[in-house]
Order: sequence, then C-alpha cells, then structure tokens
Amino acid sequence: MSTTTLPQTSQRLDPAESLYDLLFRPRSVAIVGASGRGVGLTARPLQLLRQHGYAGRIHPVNPRYDEIDGLPCSPTIAAIPGGVDLVLSLVPAAHTVDVIEDAAQAGAKVVVVFASGFAETGPAGARLQNDIEAAARRSGIRIVGPNCQGLIHVPTGFFGTFTAAAGRDMHGTSGVAYVGQSGAIGGSVLDLSAEMGLSLTAWASTGNQADLDLVEVAESMLSDDDINVVLMYAEGISDGARFVRIAQRAAQRNKRLVLLRSGRSTSGKRAAASHTGAMLGDDQALVAASQRYNVILVDDVDEMLAVGAVLATAAPLTGNRLGIVTTSGGAGILLTDQLAVRGLEVPPLSEESSTELKEFVPDFGAVSNPVDVTAQVLSSPTAMPDFAEVCRIAAADEHVDGLAIVLTMVTGERALNLAHTLVNVARHRTDKPTWIIWLASREQTTGAREVLRAAGIPVFDSAGDLARTLAQVTPPALFQSDSAVSNTRAAEVLLNERPGQLEALFDALAISRAEPRLARTPDDAARIATELATPVAMKIHAKSVIHKSDVGGVRLNVEASTAGRTFDELVATAHTHAINDLEGVDVEPMARPGIELVVGATASGDGYPAVVSVGFGGVTTEIFRDIAAIAAPIDETQARQLLTRLTAWPLLNGFRGTPPADVAAAAAAISAVSAMAHAAEGRAFEFEINPLIVHADRQGVTAVDALIRVRRDEQLAS
Amino acid sequence: MSTTTLPQTSQRLDPAESLYDLLFRPRSVAIVGASGRGVGLTARPLQLLRQHGYAGRIHPVNPRYDEIDGLPCSPTIAAIPGGVDLVLSLVPAAHTVDVIEDAAQAGAKVVVVFASGFAETGPAGARLQNDIEAAARRSGIRIVGPNCQGLIHVPTGFFGTFTAAAGRDMHGTSGVAYVGQSGAIGGSVLDLSAEMGLSLTAWASTGNQADLDLVEVAESMLSDDDINVVLMYAEGISDGARFVRIAQRAAQRNKRLVLLRSGRSTSGKRAAASHTGAMLGDDQALVAASQRYNVILVDDVDEMLAVGAVLATAAPLTGNRLGIVTTSGGAGILLTDQLAVRGLEVPPLSEESSTELKEFVPDFGAVSNPVDVTAQVLSSPTAMPDFAEVCRIAAADEHVDGLAIVLTMVTGERALNLAHTLVNVARHRTDKPTWIIWLASREQTTGAREVLRAAGIPVFDSAGDLARTLAQVTPPALFQSDSAVSNTRAAEVLLNERPGQLEALFDALAISRAEPRLARTPDDAARIATELATPVAMKIHAKSVIHKSDVGGVRLNVEASTAGRTFDELVATAHTHAINDLEGVDVEPMARPGIELVVGATASGDGYPAVVSVGFGGVTTEIFRDIAAIAAPIDETQARQLLTRLTAWPLLNGFRGTPPADVAAAAAAISAVSAMAHAAEGRAFEFEINPLIVHADRQGVTAVDALIRVRRDEQLAS
Repeated sequence: MSTTTLPQTSQRLDPAESLYDLLFRPRSVAIVGASGRGVGLTARPLQLLRQHGYAGRIHPVNPRYDEIDGLPCSPTIAAIPGGVDLVLSLVPAAHTVDVIEDAAQAGAKVVVVFASGFAETGPAGARLQNDIEAAARRSGIRIVGPNCQGLIHVPTGFFGTFTAAAGRDMHGTSGVAYVGQSGAIGGSVLDLSAEMGLSLTAWASTGNQADLDLVEVAESMLSDDDINVVLMYAEGISDGARFVRIAQRAAQRNKRLVLLRSGRSTSGKRAAASHTGAMLGDDQALVAASQRYNVILVDDVDEMLAVGAVLATAAPLTGNRLGIVTTSGGAGILLTDQLAVRGLEVPPLSEESSTELKEFVPDFGAVSNPVDVTAQVLSSPTAMPDFAEVCRIAAADEHVDGLAIVLTMVTGERALNLAHTLVNVARHRTDKPTWIIWLASREQTTGAREVLRAAGIPVFDSAGDLARTLAQVTPPALFQSDSAVSNTRAAEVLLNERPGQLEALFDALAISRAEPRLARTPDDAARIATELATPVAMKIHAKSVIHKSDVGGVRLNVEASTAGRTFDELVATAHTHAINDLEGVDVEPMARPGIELVVGATASGDGYPAVVSVGFGGVTTEIFRDIAAIAAPIDETQARQLLTRLTAWPLLNGFRGTPPADVAAAAAAISAVSAMAHAAEGRAFEFEINPLIVHADRQGVTAVDALIRVRRDEQLAS
Repeated sequence: MSTTTLPQTSQRLDPAESLYDLLFRPRSVAIVGASGRGVGLTARPLQLLRQHGYAGRIHPVNPRYDEIDGLPCSPTIAAIPGGVDLVLSLVPAAHTVDVIEDAAQAGAKVVVVFASGFAETGPAGARLQNDIEAAARRSGIRIVGPNCQGLIHVPTGFFGTFTAAAGRDMHGTSGVAYVGQSGAIGGSVLDLSAEMGLSLTAWASTGNQADLDLVEVAESMLSDDDINVVLMYAEGISDGARFVRIAQRAAQRNKRLVLLRSGRSTSGKRAAASHTGAMLGDDQALVAASQRYNVILVDDVDEMLAVGAVLATAAPLTGNRLGIVTTSGGAGILLTDQLAVRGLEVPPLSEESSTELKEFVPDFGAVSNPVDVTAQVLSSPTAMPDFAEVCRIAAADEHVDGLAIVLTMVTGERALNLAHTLVNVARHRTDKPTWIIWLASREQTTGAREVLRAAGIPVFDSAGDLARTLAQVTPPALFQSDSAVSNTRAAEVLLNERPGQLEALFDALAISRAEPRLARTPDDAARIATELATPVAMKIHAKSVIHKSDVGGVRLNVEASTAGRTFDELVATAHTHAINDLEGVDVEPMARPGIELVVGATASGDGYPAVVSVGFGGVTTEIFRDIAAIAAPIDETQARQLLTRLTAWPLLNGFRGTPPADVAAAAAAISAVSAMAHAAEGRAFEFEINPLIVHADRQGVTAVDALIRVRRDEQLAS
C-alpha cells in the first residue's frame, strides 16, 4: 500500500532530483497494450499497480477494450483525460516508435519499453533501437529500456514492471534503491532482498539503455531524500567522469553507493608496460576512485544485499567492536573467530555490565563477551523480558559499537515471541546497530522471520555472512581527503617527449637521480668509470628495451679496470637479443645502499582519477606483490600513510634494530609523482620509477631508472 | 520411514564398526521416563521414533503407566520382555546412575543421557558426572552424554533425540554423518542440512562426554559402509594420536573427514621461541596432519554443510574445470569471476559442443561457456527437454569436469517442471557432478526446492557459496605421500643438551655450517679476524639471548683492523641490555652470498606429527610471512615441492635473468631436518635454522645459526 503522496509538480532545480520524480513518482500511468485477461505479461503491470495500491491515476490504453478490470480504457494515449506522466509500453518492438511519439505528443515525460527484439537480437533490432532513440531525442521524452523490466517505487505503490518478484508484499522503508541493466539479476535482487528483510524503496532495470543508463538512474536516486543507499550492478563503468560524479554526489550527501561489478575475470587485460600497472589490473582507477569516495565494491549478489541491509539499519556502525549475545556458546565462538580474521573485535564487557548480566544468565552460561544466555533461558516464564534486558545491557556497554545476536534452534511460538522481542530491542532498547544471525531453517522460523522482515531487520544465515558484511561497511580510518597538490610543469614534461626528458622530469619533480653518462665505446666506459672513482653500474641504452635486467642488460659493481670488457659483453648481449637501437651503455656511480621501492602513476584518460602506487622491491616487486595504490593527488602526509600500508613498511620504519629509512623523502617523492599525475590525468599514460632507492634517514632518495609511456591517441587500448 | 533392516547381531570384528551398530542401529530402544502427554521433552523421543517409522522395538519405561500411546509400558528396564539394546534416559540428573545400573543389569549396551545438571553446572554436578562415569566403567556399558541431544540414524528411523530439528522428513541417503558436542549447533546442523538438500544419514550430539567422545563416535561412523563423509564440529582436538588415527582411517577407506574447528581467535597462544613456530600458530600440527590425510578444515557451519553436500553427490569432482549453464548472462559472469579468484576454470567448450548447443539456444544467448540459454528459453513449449539437452551437451564436453547450473527468477509451475528436469539431468544425462545455484527466494520456489531436496540435490544461494565450496573439495595435487625418512641419531643429539651440541647436530644432519670461533677479548677477536683473512661477522655469545639481532648483538662485514673495537662495542651493547651470561663474541667468516631461508621443525609431543616449515628471508621472515609447512617426514622431492609453495620460489629458481640457487641442497637440508623431527616427535621441541643461506646452484647451503628448545617435561605449555 502506498504510504507517501505524489508530488504535485516536478519543478525541482536539481535535474537529477527532477528525473527521480519523473521516473519513480509519476502522478499518472498509462499502460499501452494492457489486457485484463489471465496471467499474461500484458495483464501483469495493471495487476501489480492495483495490488500495491498505486497512489496515482491508472489509464489502460487499448482500442479493443472499453474498460479493463473496472477501469475505463482509452483507445489512444491522446484520448486520456487530463494527460499522463509516464507510459508503460507493452506493445511489440515494431510498434514502439509510434507509442513514443504518441506519448510525447500527449505531454508524457517518460516511456518504459518492455519489449525485447532490439539491439540484443542483431542488426535489424539495432535499427529499431536507433529509431526509438531518435524519436526520444526529437521529442525530449525519456526512455527506459527497451528490453527492460521497468521501474518500482514502493512507498507510492508504483510498480511499473512485470517481474515475477514484484508480487510479494513490500514496505519500502529501507531507504535503499537498486539499479542494474540485467532484468534477470534485477528480479533476483528484488526477491532475495525482500526475503532477507531488506525491503527496497526503489528499483530499476534499465535493459538495453537506448536513452537512460544505470549511472543516470543511480544519480537520480542519490538525489532524492527517499534514498540513503544505492546498490548498482554493472559490468564495469567505462565513463570514469560520470562514475566520479555520482560517487562525489553520494559522498557530499552522506549517502552510500554499493557497486557489484562483474566480468573482471573475462575482461581483456590492458597491455601494461609498468610493473605496478600490470599488478594492479584493469580496474585500478575504478577501485581507487571508489576508495576515495567511500564507494563499497562487492563481488556477489548476496554480498551486495547484505551490505545494503546493514547500511539500511537506522543506527550506523561507528567502530569495529562488537558485542555478542548468543543462545549457544559454540555459535558465539564461531562468530568471534569469523570477526577476528577480518579485523573486528569482541572485547570483554565492563565489570559493571557483567555483574548486571549475572541476574539474567545461568551460572553455566557466560556474562563476558560473547554473552551466552544458553538455550535454557528461553524456556523460563520471564524469558522474553530477560532476553531483551540482556541485549540492552550488552549493547549499552561502552566497549562495544554494535550488537550481534546469534540464535540457534529457537522455533515455533517461542521463535515468534523472540522475534517481537528482537524488534523491541532494536527499536527501543539501544541506539547502537543490532544484527541477527539465525542458525535455523526458514521453514522452522517462517512466522518469526516475517515479523523481523516487516520491521526491516535483516537476518543473516551464518557467522561468516555477518562478519564479511560488517568488515565491508566498517568505516575505514579517514585516509584520503581531497588534496590540492598539482604540478602542471612536471605533467607538461611527462606528456611531451623531447631530448633530455627524464632529466627535465626529475628536475620538475625535485627527485634526485642517478646520473648516467653514455659510453659509446669500451674506452669511453673505462674513462667514465675511472673518473667516477667508485664501482659503477652499467646498463644498455636502447629505447626499445623497457626492462633492461630481463635481457641481461645491467651489470652492477663494475670496477674501472673491467669497465671496457663489460661494455663489450653488454653489446654482445644486446646483439643476442636482436636489439637494433642500441645507442651505447650508460655508466653511473653505484647508488648508495637503501631500500628499493617502485613508484608508479597511471591514467587512462577516461575520466577516472590518475592512480599513484608504491611497491616494495625493485625487480622482485612482482614476486611479493606488496603494492599499495590510491587516487592521485596525495600530499606528503597521505603518501606516508600509503607507505604504511605496505607489508614491508616495518623495513622502512626500522625493524629489529636496523635504522629507519628516509621515509620523509620517499613520501615527498611519491606526493610529487601524484601531483604530476593529477595534472596529466586527462591523458592516458604510464610512468614508473624503478627502483627508487630510499637511503637511511635524512639521506634522501635516488631514482635509478624510470619508464614513460604516453598514449598519443589519448586512450590506452583495451 | 525406515529403508534398511537392522543387524541381527553385532559380532563384527572391528570394534569401531561394532560400536556403530550399538549406537546407531539398536534392535530395540527403551525410553526411561517416557510420558505420552503433550509436547514436553519426555514425550518427544517416542513421537519421533514413531513418526520416522523406527524399524526396531520401542519400550516405554515408566512405573506410572501401563501403556503410552498404545505401546505397553514397562515399570522397569528389567521388566522389558526380551531385553533391550539401547536406553534413552529422560530422568533427572540425580536418578541417572540408577538407570545406567539397571540398563547394564538388563544387558543393554548403550545409555543416552539427556539430562543436564552435570559438570556444566559446577562441582556438585561434576560429582554426579563422575558417578555415572564410574558406573559405566564398572559395567562396561557405553554412555552418550550427559547433557546431550542424542543419536539419529535416519535409514532405520532411529531418532534417539528430542531436538526440535528432528521433526522434519528426511531420507538419509546422503552417506554423510555429523558429530559434535554442542546440542545447539547440532540442532542447527540437522535443520539447515535438511533445508539445503543434504539429508544426513547419521547424527550425534555427545554433550558432556562422560564416556564416549566425538572422536570415538566419528571413528565408528567412518567404519560403517553407510557413511562416506563425516562432518565434525570441535573446539580443537587435543589428542593428536587419536585425530591422526581417524584421519588415517578415513584416508584408507577413501572417505572424507570435514572438521569445523572453533575457538582459534580465543585459544591461548603458546609461547613459541622460533619465528616459524610463532607464525604458524597453535594449531599448525592439526593443520599439517589434516593436509596429509586430506581432512577438509572449515570455519563456519554453512561452509561445513556446503562441503558435505558437494561431497555427498554421486559423482566426485576430478578436476578444476567447470561448465556453466545459466538463464542469465550476468549471473554466469558473476560465477565465472567467483571461480576464477579461487583457481577454478571456466574453459571454452569445444567447437562441436557449441555447434550442437546452437539448436537450443537463441541467437542472443551464448553457446560457449558460460552457456546462456536466456530466460526466454524456459517459456517455449519444448523448454524442459531443450534445457535438459543443453545441460547434457555442456556436461559431456571433454573440457569440463563438472557442471554448474545458475537459475534466476524461475518460479511457480515452471520452477516445478524445471526441478524435475534437473533431477533427470543429474541422474540420467551425465556422469559428471552437477550443482545448482538458484537466485530466487525460497518462498517463490518452495515446491521446486522440495523436489530437489528429495532427490538429494543441494541448492546453493550464491555464486560465491558454490565457488568457495568447490575450491575446498577440489582434489589437491597429490603432494604428500608417506615418506620413510627418519634420523634417530640426529633426534638423539637434538633432545639431549651437551657441550658442542650444535656442531654435532649439523654433522648428524649433514648440513654445512658457518663455524664461529669464540673470542673472549678484543685481542682474540682481532687475531681471529686476521687469521681468517676475510671480512667477518661478529655476534654476542650468550645462552639467554635467542634473537641476537634484536638486541643489536650482530655486526657484519667487520675488517680485522676494527674487530677489537667492535668487540668492545658488542660487550657494551650486552651490558645495556642487562645480558648477564655473556661468554664472549663469536667471530666467523662472512658467509658467501645467497638467498636466506628459515627452516623450522616443531613437535608438541601430543600425538600429532612433527611439522617442518620453511620461510623466506632471515630476520624479515616475520614481515612477509612467506612460509610453507607440512607434516614431517618428507623426502627431498617433497621438500623441493614445499619450496615451490613459497611466494619467493621464483627467486630460488632463477628470476628475470638471475642464476638459480642450489635448490637441491636446500631440499636435502629440509628433508634432513624433517627426518630428525619425525624421529623426535614423541617429545615437545622447537628447532630452527636461521638463516639457512642457499648459495648459487651447486654451491650448497650454509647454516648460519640455529635455535634448539626442548621441553623437559615432555610437553610445551599451552
């Protein structure tokens, strides 16, 4: 049943807000091609609108009927008295353009096209889809679909859909909305969310997206006061600028975006030249942007719904410390284990709480944390008030941020009473969030689950399910605020190849560098090494060779006396590898010792932020894959935090008596690279310093070598 | 209803087999304290036995009734005509000893004691429990419980329990049994397994375990032809010898043991002296023994049931390549992603299969892998035979080892037809294992799920659930067979401290070692360094110091000219750290370069095998935690395989142009350590070589230092 009223006008200033009204709060709906007969597709939307008590006017449109199910039926859209806001088109693909034109003519703002037979079926269908796209553009009317399952707004009873999942009762007060292309996944999401106690407020399946796509629909959802959380399902989002825009909008409005992305295992891998680029994978920019704006990335439908359910509860989780109340000691320990491996804590309750709890818990139970009330407690005459009091005391304890209640085989009448008690606990006994794990089949607990569902309290199936979900929503240490650093001069040097580019770039970045001198003959090499008066590093110099050590093109610790012979060996090695552009051999002093890092920056020029990354180790980076990445730009404090995320951080920080390295200089270098990358992020490029040697504290850093690759066509191939 | 007959005698030769008959196939059951009234506890076992059509005789025993529910009621156990095999005791704790004595007198073999009020409630209850234990010992009768929920054997309808979960219909043909102490978890397991389509064959809750414990019950289950898989829930198993025995029995009989262990986050951590010991944690021996005998370790109730359900299916999974048939392209991709991150593959089908599939799949579907039949296919008149044929073709493809079927919103009548089709596919269309993921609520698919459940076909709730489960049951590369290496001489040296122990030990292990010479004065140090004629390493020599570098007690690359000064510095450092047993400073040649490993061996003397481990890095081992462990002993081939499990393996094997290390020598050293550890495993000890330097190929290894700790009381404290 509808519980809110429909807007009288859609004169909002924010176009996204206004779009939300058009899509989800139409004041009237026409159903073109409606029929009243049977259980067919064409009868379904009308049935659903009436079942859910749609708050607006309903106008069946079909020249073959005068009335359908007691409602007057118009022969055409134009004939609808008083006009119509939104049109549901149930006619076949070939007639869809006519419906769109009629709808636009009659002043409707949106047409939802259910028919399939468009681009998904081949070239002929694609032409039909182009036609409806063109019709929409001409008239300014917005199209949802084709080949979609439509739109739902539960509070107003607007069910513009035929999905089988829409037949169940929903209250829609969760403040959680879902949008995705796929009708099949969308139907499952609607059904499974309702079953677990997450009653979605709004829902959309965008199908072939001839006009409106899921990003625009998500943006409209985020703009409305109805909605606090938007769940999206997408096979990646290619337009980074739009993704960043909705992520920002969510962050600004203190709302949460949850993205289920698929196809990571099958997507074409970009050919990355840098080690860091290759290790971070295709979607590094999406991941970095998500992290910056607190978008939650999930990998499965059940994960997405569980995260949505936890975010929907009234009280947010503000820390990582959980209280547990359980009917089974064993189940409490299982949950403690599951939370511990994910960094969540189950601290002992205060002395005072434990003393209070003793009044309600048998001696063979436990009053610390987990609180084990034992199954026996639930059979006492005062079971339910006692249980509520136990939950209140545990949740009130200052050492916990939320309460998990773990139930085992409580069934039948007792389960029903318990469900009412749990609703009361969640609503009136605590301000902290509470969650329920119930280790009993749905069949044995049907009535109780209905009570919890109606109250919008999700029920988790296992300790692992809850622990995984809480780990995903636990607020991260506030790591990344926007930083203003930018370095357009360095970006300019990076993007424009010219002689001496690397030297100029390191100057612009203010990162000191091993200065190689090019030897063109064995005698050159010997002379340079003698002048340097220290052991030298010698490396082949050829533009075509990206990873010199891979081809045996690097020799370290060469003495002046053998520099000439080493020159000849390197030239021979280059010939063995058919390197045709050898210009000579670089000779440079052996770098002072230190800890080797790889510092990378990439951008793909598709609207996502540039990503800056740091990895431990030079050539060995790929073995340990100890790498941390973040959206650029970052200041030096943030760069230091990035370094602390490395597994190898203790080595930099001084480990077991070894002196610390110059972390400040490393952080300054990483921040400088990020500032350059940020200024250059409209273009597609890869940049990597490999290695960056971090010397002992106050001794600075040395960049030994670097790689630059800029895509001239503005976009890295995928 | 019972489907098998009861044994006429229990004259089996294997005591565990015979115990299974006694516990799970009694020919007659007495219910002492039975009542016929209402829904109470005392009425429940009789109701359950009759509901499930128990195949044996049932004898209520209660002096207050002549008959209960139409069955003659005996006043005493002795009065039962023809005697009785098994007694269910429903009387309160205080009267339990009498029941046990009466039962033994009457020739019964087992008493199941349901009453609580024993050791779990405090000292008085513990005394009562001692009494029943003593009564059992005197008479030889076996006790299950007290404070337990009893025993179930579904095929014979023997429900010796009162758990609320036992009221549902079960067929018990899975060949999967469960045993655990906890009644609450046991009830949940029974209920949830039935719901997911895993109908357990046998079930036991052992409660306080006054006599029979879960290991003995599990052993009896493994011994019976009924049972192919045993699920156990335990908070660790302290008696390693018994765990190894049941694990071996399972392996020998080609059965699988699945262990859900809890309390890892709360168990007291042993104080490990070695790096490897500390990193591997308390249960390293249980993990290593499980790996050797293919015991599957799980962390949650739902994981345990899912693994049980997959193992219960007729056809075993023999590889890691999956075919996918789906009604939604999106859902197929989600599953592909989930499988890929867990090392399972979704290879393209053969050309022939794809061609065959084209006949049944619309153009806008997909015929490769995943096969997307589209939701539309299911509405055609030939939907069901077509779908069965698609599944047959996909499963038959030579590139796949099993078939996952992913369904979305198929509901109502169509769902019911589909369920029958799926049963047909699993039974008749393929010999390969098939699994179902159904992304629709249970409410919308109740009838269909009942059909699948009755056929013993499990239904998974998400792509992640199936992928996680298959990753756990996928047969590992056959890594560890029993190895015969043993070195009692080295074990003898290890366990008995005496002067020159380390030298003697490395001799016995045939591992070459850096030979330190002890300097007692600065002049000594200078003289030794001069004699060695190479840069030296200098280390404080004091028994109390386990990790010398932690206290600044190690100096490397010292020249002879500064050895005297370095001696003084090290002595000063020792004073700073209040080291009172400093004997001098060890001086040794700097080891030739190489890759540093840590090689450890531990045993806890509690019946578990010794564990041998190898970690990458010397002092840095704890940072990267790159460590591999296995049950000792292992031969050199197995030791080499252990090394390949390290993340750092490529460094040993020659990475990006660097020469390979002497892996053969490293493997020989590890095998030697394992042979020593195996010979010594009756005692509790820790041993660690740190570092073992692995030189270039054919250059051998050098043990630089080692740590020995032997627990004199035969057991490491916990």
